[in-house]
Amino acid sequence: MNYPPAAFPNYRPLDEHTVISFVSQIQPAKDALGDSPESWHAREVGDGNLNLVFIVASSNGSVIVKQALPYIRCVGETWALPLERAFFENEALSEEAKWVPDLLPKRYHYDSDQAAIVMEYLSPHIILRKGFIQGIRYPRLAADIAEFMAQTLFKTSGLYLDAATKKKRMAVFCLNTELCRITEELVFTDPYRVAKLNRWTTPQLDDMALAFRQDGPLKTAVQRLKLKFLSSAEALIHGDLHSGSIMATPEETRVIDPEFAFYGPMGFDVGAVIGNLLLAYFSQEGHESSPGQRKEYRAWLLQTVEETWNRFEQRFLELWQEPATGDAYHASLFADPSSIEALATEQRTYLHQLFHDSVGFAGAKMIRRILGLAHVEDLEAIKDPDLRARCERKALRLGRLLVIDSNTFFKITEVTAAARQEYSHHES
Amino acid sequence: MNYPPAAFPNYRPLDEHTVISFVSQIQPAKDALGDSPESWHAREVGDGNLNLVFIVASSNGSVIVKQALPYIRCVGETWALPLERAFFENEALSEEAKWVPDLLPKRYHYDSDQAAIVMEYLSPHIILRKGFIQGIRYPRLAADIAEFMAQTLFKTSGLYLDAATKKKRMAVFCLNTELCRITEELVFTDPYRVAKLNRWTTPQLDDMALAFRQDGPLKTAVQRLKLKFLSSAEALIHGDLHSGSIMATPEETRVIDPEFAFYGPMGFDVGAVIGNLLLAYFSQEGHESSPGQRKEYRAWLLQTVEETWNRFEQRFLELWQEPATGDAYHASLFADPSSIEALATEQRTYLHQLFHDSVGFAGAKMIRRILGLAHVEDLEAIKDPDLRARCERKALRLGRLLVIDSNTFFKITEVTAAARQEYSHHES
Repeated sequence: MNYPPAAFPNYRPLDEHTVISFVSQIQPAKDALGDSPESWHAREVGDGNLNLVFIVASSNGSVIVKQALPYIRCVGETWALPLERAFFENEALSEEAKWVPDLLPKRYHYDSDQAAIVMEYLSPHIILRKGFIQGIRYPRLAADIAEFMAQTLFKTSGLYLDAATKKKRMAVFCLNTELCRITEELVFTDPYRVAKLNRWTTPQLDDMALAFRQDGPLKTAVQRLKLKFLSSAEALIHGDLHSGSIMATPEETRVIDPEFAFYGPMGFDVGAVIGNLLLAYFSQEGHESSPGQRKEYRAWLLQTVEETWNRFEQRFLELWQEPATGDAYHASLFADPSSIEALATEQRTYLHQLFHDSVGFAGAKMIRRILGLAHVEDLEAIKDPDLRARCERKALRLGRLLVIDSNTFFKITEVTAAARQEYSHHES
Repeated sequence: MNYPPAAFPNYRPLDEHTVISFVSQIQPAKDALGDSPESWHAREVGDGNLNLVFIVASSNGSVIVKQALPYIRCVGETWALPLERAFFENEALSEEAKWVPDLLPKRYHYDSDQAAIVMEYLSPHIILRKGFIQGIRYPRLAADIAEFMAQTLFKTSGLYLDAATKKKRMAVFCLNTELCRITEELVFTDPYRVAKLNRWTTPQLDDMALAFRQDGPLKTAVQRLKLKFLSSAEALIHGDLHSGSIMATPEETRVIDPEFAFYGPMGFDVGAVIGNLLLAYFSQEGHESSPGQRKEYRAWLLQTVEETWNRFEQRFLELWQEPATGDAYHASLFADPSSIEALATEQRTYLHQLFHDSVGFAGAKMIRRILGLAHVEDLEAIKDPDLRARCERKALRLGRLLVIDSNTFFKITEVTAAARQEYSHHES
């Protein structure tokens, strides 16, 4: 078992100069770059919230160096954040690489002294969220993300692993407390109370922000989800699986940035994907060059929501139907015909519960991106605040519905229908 | 954070001679015994399944030395069991001592080299199970056990602890894998398949043992409970809270033996208490000196089932109504009147779910004591196999009902009514 280092005495934040000598020590990265380090050049491109990200390029190719900073970049040095998150990211990448190597960037090196990971520069992949803003279609997206989720969630769960192996992995990821705390506060708590870091399109959404802060049933439903996040150690989840953690071309999909990984509820990952597709859907109105121009693209986004869930469900069930190795629902118990049938029914029930969870988490993820600290470019890029607020209001209303009524949704088409209805209702 | 020792190089099983010099090194135990060690005498009295237990006595008093053995005593050296369970027992006792010191034996010493705990000799307390067999009433039992469970479960949960504190404790208890494995196999798996260690009253119960092994709906329901046991890290549970882990007089109650402790579902502890009271109930027929002699005692046992749940529910809700400190349902979210009301409703919902869980686990705990490896003296003490089988058959039938229909029980009186019905149904 690997545990995170107790301290980082040799850590120094890299810069555009030092990163070149750093990479020149790493043979596989050196091989990828070719040339001599003197001819390399580096650029810091981190547009995320937490880390330094460098592209180191030669005339032959490029590599990425992602280095943790000891604080949250988008908040500042007042919110300290431990460097060990690079350890957890590397551990999670190692686990994911067992099951879906083709859906990840290649890793060249993990440096525990510098809390840094050196990996493949993905090109011409772009951040999926930026693709959504541009209206690009990704025909492989649903299948790839469904495969990623089904494989990583099923195969790190008690349905696949023996209990002791799973618990020993949990013991390590339980220590990723600070990254979990970000989610606990920014997703499940702050948007529902007065909090310094909250922001929203004001004054347009002031009424909804206030109403959400006083909405007892909404807050209890969100807290039920939070309790699940705190205590349902179902599988090693990515923990931040939004469209900013996916890079894609129409032909290829890569999942990045699992530094929030821990043993948590599967529905949190599935909900992140669905919720962010729905945020993209509601933001399209703000990116139209003329009214209705994105109508078909909107339809494609909803179709992708449906296809992602449907394929995920199918793959998850397929994996579960392979000769079972996990300690829960052990194969030795389900050999006779009546038991096989009962197990098939139970698997459907399991997927229904996972669907309810995913719907609820999707709603919570939507709300926090509009009323909390960290917003999404899909909406932020809409310059006209009235237009943006109109899009956000619809997303908020659907988000609330998904959280409060998550157990009344049984099919993914009911979710997309609700999205369509919310969209038109306010259009009129 | 304390972690279990990596090895026990100085460990040697104690015997009735060496235990005296061992205790003579421990000042608080020495104080309790008084006299000089030469006048002490020791006796090995372990009647449990796992450990060495010595009573060391002087003319002034006695102390207990509980030492782990590197295998399961009741199975033999073929089932190795790590010594570090003494570490987990001591950690759990330390945690429990924060909340319910008066419901525990006093600890004098934990010895990490010898995997041993030196503690108060409880007298005139007897193992509760033996009291049930003798037909002794314990008027304080329900209130004390309800208090023990409410305090230890609530205060180690996300309802009371901040997330990081809870996760760091989880990280330690996740490593108690081997003790959990015993439960996983002996409670949730072996009774439902052909397994070498299973035994039951044969041939009388052969039909039911076979029927349970082929009962698809029962097996899926038990596996759903097992999955919850594997992945619901709700609170630090005792993990083995049957009537053999409680010592009592009519005036006092003490909970012992938390070596199975880990972060698991609260309902597993509550269900252990309920299930073992119900086993005591069904066994009374075998301990009657004349037909009907235990009728009132049977009624007292069911009344204790009801009182235990009712008081537990009440205390749990009271603790939850104190100014909240936990990360889930954080107090800052529930200040306005409408939110306070919504939270009260949610707390009821939470307790309903916990009740369903407890009912299911109670059923599973009953079944495993009749068809699995480890039986209970309540039933084993019934010499006539036909009579014993008659008692066991009723308990099995109720156990199955509780597991399969756990979600249809909403009140504890529905459980006791079902027990009464099962009892009379077969009497006729």
